[in-house]
Amino acid sequence: MVVAKSGIDSGKLTNFTAKVLQKVGLPEEGAKIAAKLLVDCDLRGIDSHGINHLKSFYVKGIQNGFINPKPKTEISSLSPSTAIMEADRGLGFVVGYRAMMEAIRRAKEVGTGFVAVRNNTHLGAVSGYSMLALEHDMIGITLAQTGPQKEVVPPGSKVRGVGTNPISVAIPAGEKPAFVLDMATSAVSWGKLELAQMKGITMPEGWVVDNEGKPVTDPNKVESGKIALVPLGGTPLMGSYKGFALGVLVDILCGVLSGGKTGLLTANEGHGVNNPAHSFFGAILVDGFLPVDKFKKSMDEMTEAYENLPTVPGVKKIYIAGGYEAEIVKERRANGIPFNPKVIQELKELSEEFGIEYDL
Amino acid sequence: MVVAKSGIDSGKLTNFTAKVLQKVGLPEEGAKIAAKLLVDCDLRGIDSHGINHLKSFYVKGIQNGFINPKPKTEISSLSPSTAIMEADRGLGFVVGYRAMMEAIRRAKEVGTGFVAVRNNTHLGAVSGYSMLALEHDMIGITLAQTGPQKEVVPPGSKVRGVGTNPISVAIPAGEKPAFVLDMATSAVSWGKLELAQMKGITMPEGWVVDNEGKPVTDPNKVESGKIALVPLGGTPLMGSYKGFALGVLVDILCGVLSGGKTGLLTANEGHGVNNPAHSFFGAILVDGFLPVDKFKKSMDEMTEAYENLPTVPGVKKIYIAGGYEAEIVKERRANGIPFNPKVIQELKELSEEFGIEYDL
Repeated sequence: MVVAKSGIDSGKLTNFTAKVLQKVGLPEEGAKIAAKLLVDCDLRGIDSHGINHLKSFYVKGIQNGFINPKPKTEISSLSPSTAIMEADRGLGFVVGYRAMMEAIRRAKEVGTGFVAVRNNTHLGAVSGYSMLALEHDMIGITLAQTGPQKEVVPPGSKVRGVGTNPISVAIPAGEKPAFVLDMATSAVSWGKLELAQMKGITMPEGWVVDNEGKPVTDPNKVESGKIALVPLGGTPLMGSYKGFALGVLVDILCGVLSGGKTGLLTANEGHGVNNPAHSFFGAILVDGFLPVDKFKKSMDEMTEAYENLPTVPGVKKIYIAGGYEAEIVKERRANGIPFNPKVIQELKELSEEFGIEYDL
Repeated sequence: MVVAKSGIDSGKLTNFTAKVLQKVGLPEEGAKIAAKLLVDCDLRGIDSHGINHLKSFYVKGIQNGFINPKPKTEISSLSPSTAIMEADRGLGFVVGYRAMMEAIRRAKEVGTGFVAVRNNTHLGAVSGYSMLALEHDMIGITLAQTGPQKEVVPPGSKVRGVGTNPISVAIPAGEKPAFVLDMATSAVSWGKLELAQMKGITMPEGWVVDNEGKPVTDPNKVESGKIALVPLGGTPLMGSYKGFALGVLVDILCGVLSGGKTGLLTANEGHGVNNPAHSFFGAILVDGFLPVDKFKKSMDEMTEAYENLPTVPGVKKIYIAGGYEAEIVKERRANGIPFNPKVIQELKELSEEFGIEYDL
């Protein structure tokens, strides 16, 4: 007996998404790569960076001419372990995949590989690329400049000066889930603010500030331009200069090292949200340090030690980064991915627009 | 006319410190390296990690046999850009210097170099090592596991489970100061708590928790064992799972990748504060990506853009990481380093103990 899944099957959704991306001009291979990375976000529970953006960000971006479906990416290299890639405004998923594969190729040869990418477009969740390194028994690193969308106010300033510039590092493990860090360098994401607004929840001091640098707690003031995010840490007293420094670090490795520019400079030149942004990919061969079996065993021991820590009431166990998401993947592979009606509606619209059967 | 400096001259202090370290058994070269790194901390205003620890941490550590003044460090390597070092409980300054020099040597050859170090001892401030890369036009990375001193409570747990595990990245610039990140992955350091206790200042919620995981704001409760630090972010609502993930990341790259253990596992085995800890050093050749002159010009433009941001009242300008410390260096090179009477007293005691002229 076949029991119907309560959500959408990830395999079917990947096929559907690949067809949509081919219809807007992506070659088959790129469309499949992008579709898998997008659906992987939803499988991991990162609902804010997956299929919900298919129509609004990626299909529209390609149709508007901002995203190039057939980029001529070019790699130039001045050392065995380092390279720069010109991304030619390619779809972030395809560019990011190529860049990480280039980093992995170099890491196989000399132990580590790093690729700084110029003129990329929206990457989705950065962990998708870092995790590509895992099956090669490598540590994967992905950093992304969120571009000239100045979003975060540096401690001591009144105005926005840096993006939410996320950091991801994925590290292989044995039986236990891989360590997968994926964090914005701001205290919270725009998604959390929208949720507070929707639910009418008072925001804690330290989530957002007004244009005098003062904390805003009224969720009704979450309006574009009038409030801004703050760095991880929240306030200077709580170490927000650390979150700011991490954001600038990402901006340098992505924007400066790729031969591009930092988000602040691009924004100062008057370029808006739709300016391409820069990114940074790295791969580190575990076997370059010690036998990978020993490494993985030690990773599992660490994870188990955290799982055994006593917890406060209401908390089942202590996960390392990526552990909770790994459980969501299992659940969603089995039962399908739940989407809100707005996303379902957009998928149906894409089905009609491109004459693709809606079999989800 | 020679005007007396109000503080202690950094050159004289470095010579004095090197003599002390030679007296306790360090070879001349190692003593000079360690003395320079120690005094550099004080020059940069990192008073919590410099000469204040000379007697209590390093001289006593060597005298007690915990720190090995003549370590037989051994490097083993399985790829051109990666290596492991066995530190043989050497003085952290000497080991860290050797490890970073090895990373730099490899980066000159293949673009990047990474060295994971096992069985190291206290490094002082991690930025000292990252900054060694700057004069080679490289990006320097230093991570340190603070060992089995479990200090920080993971979000959702009642007990300590990770060290304050600091991260440093130093990135060269042109005319402007280098970017130098040096941050614990906890919200605050023990030093800040001691200050609050000394001054009787109420601590903000999110600095420390009690053994039920509840916030403690009374500075009189700052007693060893009864309170614990929290990760950067402060509370789960403010993103403390990010600070925790960064702390675990450091633990993995230092503890697991070096073939050692993570802090939690070492502590679980009953080893105390004086167990050796592990660390991680990296160097990335800027010229491996793009011409260093172009890179430095772009770094300066970025720093200038931050300096030009409007500030809130009371804030002179927005510094990137390391910018403020660079100003302290200038001031202290000119006027000497101010020390509190306790540190001066310890220097005099060392002078007597070892028969070294006190010329500071």
